[in-house]
Amino acid sequence: MLILGIDPGTVTMGYGLIEATSDELRLIDYGVLTSKVYPLAQRLYALYSGINEILGRWGPDEVAIEEPFMARNARLALAVGRAQAIAMLAAAQSGIPAYTYTPAQVKQAATGYGGSGKEQVQVMVTIQLGLKLLPQPDDAADALAVAVCHFGQKHLAEIVAKEK
Amino acid sequence: MLILGIDPGTVTMGYGLIEATSDELRLIDYGVLTSKVYPLAQRLYALYSGINEILGRWGPDEVAIEEPFMARNARLALAVGRAQAIAMLAAAQSGIPAYTYTPAQVKQAATGYGGSGKEQVQVMVTIQLGLKLLPQPDDAADALAVAVCHFGQKHLAEIVAKEK
Repeated sequence: MLILGIDPGTVTMGYGLIEATSDELRLIDYGVLTSKVYPLAQRLYALYSGINEILGRWGPDEVAIEEPFMARNARLALAVGRAQAIAMLAAAQSGIPAYTYTPAQVKQAATGYGGSGKEQVQVMVTIQLGLKLLPQPDDAADALAVAVCHFGQKHLAEIVAKEK
Repeated sequence: MLILGIDPGTVTMGYGLIEATSDELRLIDYGVLTSKVYPLAQRLYALYSGINEILGRWGPDEVAIEEPFMARNARLALAVGRAQAIAMLAAAQSGIPAYTYTPAQVKQAATGYGGSGKEQVQVMVTIQLGLKLLPQPDDAADALAVAVCHFGQKHLAEIVAKEK
């Protein structure tokens, strides 16, 4: 099963693709889509085209997208919400189920504590994917964390139950 | 020139199409797109399909979209931002320029005062379009107000200048 994680933003959109087999999680691809095109409508279109390109190339089974974090900054939440909407739309249009996770859920899944720092989350994701180096930049690492979180939330329980 | 106004929302998206000739503004079409489908990704896709259907049917020259009003309610602003992003994307994908206006700009354009009430704006738009009855529901009336605002902001000055 292929899971595409997305860390949405209207300037930089991180993505990370992992493959989940019965005994491991494996890193397949990661990176960032960036657009500085103006106006915003054109920038959203560029990001949308980039996501569609990734969906077409890899054909993920599920997409996991980080939710905007409302409490910190309403303007930022708005930008993240716009980027998230574009990613959700692209997934729905391709018939791929999309799931969303709050930053606290991603942290909880990675480290067992919803208030963990970004660095702790990244270290845990690096270990879970069996990597030696931390994927960079941050937005790509965050996208991988969402993908890993989704696997843990949705599929790990099923697999453990089957193996009992 | 055909201008499509959009009042974005993730449950109800109002739209209003006006034709601007050298001597009048004329109402062409208006209504609301609604979707109560879950999850949100499917709902955004339904709204996106509805907007594309309107763009395809009428081929507007320009699209005017209301901005979310951040100050009042951050959650609502996020929903409006998502719906607005979908509308912007649809316009960009069809190669139609999209413009955005804050609620205060729409009020200012309709009544000369950015703090006017919704009813005053609707009455002015009804008069500007030469109608006897107020278009309903509210979301459609709001979309027409954005379209009229866009005409005033972008084109009225050019027409007045040419006629001098």
